[in-house]
Amino acid sequence: MAAYPEYPPDQGDEQQNYLLTSLKDWSIAHGLAVRPTIAYVSAETDPSGALATTAPVTLFPSLFPRVCFEQAKSVAQDYNELYSAIASDEEWLKQTVEELVDIDDFIAQLWKVHLAVKQEGYAQVRSTRHIQILELMMIEPLNLGLFRSDYMVHTDPANAQSRPCVKQVEFNTIASSFGGLSTQVSALHKYLLAVGAYPGTLSSIISDAALPESTSVPGLALGMAKAHEVYGPSNGGLPTCVIFLVQDPERNVFDQRHVEYALNRNHGVKTFRLPFGRVLEDTKLDADRKLLYSPPHAPSKQFEVTLVYFRAGYSPAEYQSQRDWDGRLQIERSAAIKCPSILTQLAGTKKVQQVLATPHSPHLKRFVPDEARAAAVLKTFAPIYPMDKSEAGQEARKLAQDPETAVRYVLKPQREGGGNNVYRKAIPHFLKETPETHWPAHILMEMIEPPAQSNVIFRNGELQKGGVICELGIYGACLWKDEDGKGRRKILENFEAGYLLRTKGSGSEEGGVAAGFGSVDSACLIDVD
Amino acid sequence: MAAYPEYPPDQGDEQQNYLLTSLKDWSIAHGLAVRPTIAYVSAETDPSGALATTAPVTLFPSLFPRVCFEQAKSVAQDYNELYSAIASDEEWLKQTVEELVDIDDFIAQLWKVHLAVKQEGYAQVRSTRHIQILELMMIEPLNLGLFRSDYMVHTDPANAQSRPCVKQVEFNTIASSFGGLSTQVSALHKYLLAVGAYPGTLSSIISDAALPESTSVPGLALGMAKAHEVYGPSNGGLPTCVIFLVQDPERNVFDQRHVEYALNRNHGVKTFRLPFGRVLEDTKLDADRKLLYSPPHAPSKQFEVTLVYFRAGYSPAEYQSQRDWDGRLQIERSAAIKCPSILTQLAGTKKVQQVLATPHSPHLKRFVPDEARAAAVLKTFAPIYPMDKSEAGQEARKLAQDPETAVRYVLKPQREGGGNNVYRKAIPHFLKETPETHWPAHILMEMIEPPAQSNVIFRNGELQKGGVICELGIYGACLWKDEDGKGRRKILENFEAGYLLRTKGSGSEEGGVAAGFGSVDSACLIDVD
Repeated sequence: MAAYPEYPPDQGDEQQNYLLTSLKDWSIAHGLAVRPTIAYVSAETDPSGALATTAPVTLFPSLFPRVCFEQAKSVAQDYNELYSAIASDEEWLKQTVEELVDIDDFIAQLWKVHLAVKQEGYAQVRSTRHIQILELMMIEPLNLGLFRSDYMVHTDPANAQSRPCVKQVEFNTIASSFGGLSTQVSALHKYLLAVGAYPGTLSSIISDAALPESTSVPGLALGMAKAHEVYGPSNGGLPTCVIFLVQDPERNVFDQRHVEYALNRNHGVKTFRLPFGRVLEDTKLDADRKLLYSPPHAPSKQFEVTLVYFRAGYSPAEYQSQRDWDGRLQIERSAAIKCPSILTQLAGTKKVQQVLATPHSPHLKRFVPDEARAAAVLKTFAPIYPMDKSEAGQEARKLAQDPETAVRYVLKPQREGGGNNVYRKAIPHFLKETPETHWPAHILMEMIEPPAQSNVIFRNGELQKGGVICELGIYGACLWKDEDGKGRRKILENFEAGYLLRTKGSGSEEGGVAAGFGSVDSACLIDVD
Repeated sequence: MAAYPEYPPDQGDEQQNYLLTSLKDWSIAHGLAVRPTIAYVSAETDPSGALATTAPVTLFPSLFPRVCFEQAKSVAQDYNELYSAIASDEEWLKQTVEELVDIDDFIAQLWKVHLAVKQEGYAQVRSTRHIQILELMMIEPLNLGLFRSDYMVHTDPANAQSRPCVKQVEFNTIASSFGGLSTQVSALHKYLLAVGAYPGTLSSIISDAALPESTSVPGLALGMAKAHEVYGPSNGGLPTCVIFLVQDPERNVFDQRHVEYALNRNHGVKTFRLPFGRVLEDTKLDADRKLLYSPPHAPSKQFEVTLVYFRAGYSPAEYQSQRDWDGRLQIERSAAIKCPSILTQLAGTKKVQQVLATPHSPHLKRFVPDEARAAAVLKTFAPIYPMDKSEAGQEARKLAQDPETAVRYVLKPQREGGGNNVYRKAIPHFLKETPETHWPAHILMEMIEPPAQSNVIFRNGELQKGGVICELGIYGACLWKDEDGKGRRKILENFEAGYLLRTKGSGSEEGGVAAGFGSVDSACLIDVD
């Protein structure tokens, strides 16, 4: 931060050694850990996968304006409301998704799964088996969202005197990660402060009061426990459980385990980890479409699944074959609460973010009727434009082609997780080389201009010091019940569930932190004018 | 155990995989960890020492007779009383130690340190500086013992119908380890039970009620906190701290850290880790012999040390030069409470154990005047004889030379940590080959005959299944004040502080667990007739 050019300070060898030793020991003692990469530890060295290492972390908590932190937290419930409304409005979502079907095969496939389930649902309604219909109607509409809204601090480059505010980078509706480690890293930085690992010269900046605790572990576990509770006991008298649907192998397993252990410990809920590729092996649907799980280690046992928490299945690369899609369909068809359902997952696409954040968009109002709340949410949007032939698209095309205005924008492919972003002055040339028919496959987003700051990142046993960029994630838990599939819903739970600071190298300094060299971090709140 | 020949049961691959995955993740998430050996992970792979692995643990809690467990716990406070009395009776201890001075250079050196401090103390008493004398008298006599009494279950081989009881293997008065991990491993086994990682066929054996929690982490931390509190604030207005005197490097660092973190968290006590070799660099004595510590990372700061907790300095190999002895002397001279003082350390020698456990020994009564309590302690002794020319020694020589009786004994060198034990039928031949003048350098101990049992140990990423031997350690915390240096003392705190089960391969089965392949374990209590 400009106001704190010396943060974090250079440390002598003994100081750094004390800080690092304290950090390495505390992190392992408290499970702030990951399994090491193959590049760090070869499979030969550790065939049984018993080694672990400190999760990538910053040595110091990064500076973060208190007003921005408070602003992001203050809209957490509004975002829960907004996204639960979107996910409940199938008709609206359909329009948005249909624009993507031709350019994004993954979204097209997800939509197909949704349609198949919807179709079957209608078939049931037309059937004469009234009892089952009622049951389906009662169970199906429960939804759990464990969201994470990601922000960066933005200062208007045209007005250096303006107050900083947060602008949304993206909104995650599936597999929002690092909630397990975030609670630990905020506790780590508090510990390092308490044991005097930070130089006394920082005492005017870092204090216990300036380090907000992250409550993401108990918060996310509470969200799941509420869903589990609302689902209720098994009619058939089976034991119930929550499934963590996971990738296998998973290096970031402790992040997930901390939430799982909290769910066991704080709420007495039974849990199992199910690899995404094993859905069809280990689960089945009964006649009422209840999802039944039999663990491979005890195949004669059966559990009724109340909630499937996705920490997998969010990326196209995970769907290797039709079998993977069939597994996803099986879960979506089931009576288990999905965190998230396919509609909720689709609500988290960049396209939806763009539609909401396009200047003068009418959509936000639709989902957040309260004007004051809608205005608060709107303030966190960076303007995003479509690159199509709509009015807003025409405006975007002008901004993007003009070298003078293009420098304030980034051009992103609409496709999820696909292709590279084109930044600032490279945009006009890129558009010249790209057939105009392909332009609508992109969105144009105003660049967020985060303040420059530095930190030291410890990752894979290596230290890197240099320029960094921080992203603040605010977790939200929302449990709701669809009432008509057209947006009417009843919200049962809606709360903020802790925060995450993700910090990565900005690549802005020679010899500094490599760009993309990421880490978990916590916020040291500062007051700015 | 003979009554449970199928324990632990064989498991299929899926069952073992579930158990092991659950264990590996839980252990790292909860810091049940060690730094890997160089043989496991080379220094090249991990130059910064950021890797960790699951501490060596058993997959199942080992079976342990409930009566034996209760018996060992019931004498914990008596042992605290006994050993605090011995450590306060310098004159008695002197006789015992003087017998060893010629055969054990380490003990001779320790005694010299004690004598030097004693001499200086007398010099002070003879001086005219009355105020300082009083202060020394008031501060010096505080002692903290964090003891661990180790037992094995014994069944009289001559009487198969006899009830099992515990017999003491040794009594540790310095650096009693694994208290930090023991709380975690008992929690691990409870977790594995709760998540169904143990086969249902075991449900009549393993239940939550059969798995006693180990309270060693809070117990040991409480002991230290009490000592810290009794020392009180610094007269000179300095901040105070507790020093963990440690080896460097230390693979078993998390064991120590868990106790340290509990001391910080539960009691708000500041702590520092001081490598044994750095005592003279980082500490000094002021005119009142207060021990002042300046951390290398903040050399301008000074802390008054209330307590030095030894996790180093117990083994001759650690004293490489006069400088190491000078460091030990500096701590012993200081007003800081020593855990342990040299006298307390010497009270833990095998020789003292032998003197107490020699049949018809008069010494136990001297230290534990209450007859019932002394009898309870006596029951935990396996008979131990000197090999000298005393009456008991003559009896021992007879037992050891006769092949028929020798099979029930082990011959151990008196020297601490030196040489190898000679077992059973090898004893008569060994004595024939050894000049009679060297016989007194040994003690003869009746073999403890633990029941055969099996377990699976996970260590350095490898599984080994086979015959094991379990040692039960009961921690005790005792804080006392010498009143006259002749055995009179005032006990301020005396409590049991949790338990440890240490399990190692017995080498008793082909292809089983390698002998000495050790692990931390917890007890599954069983009722025996």
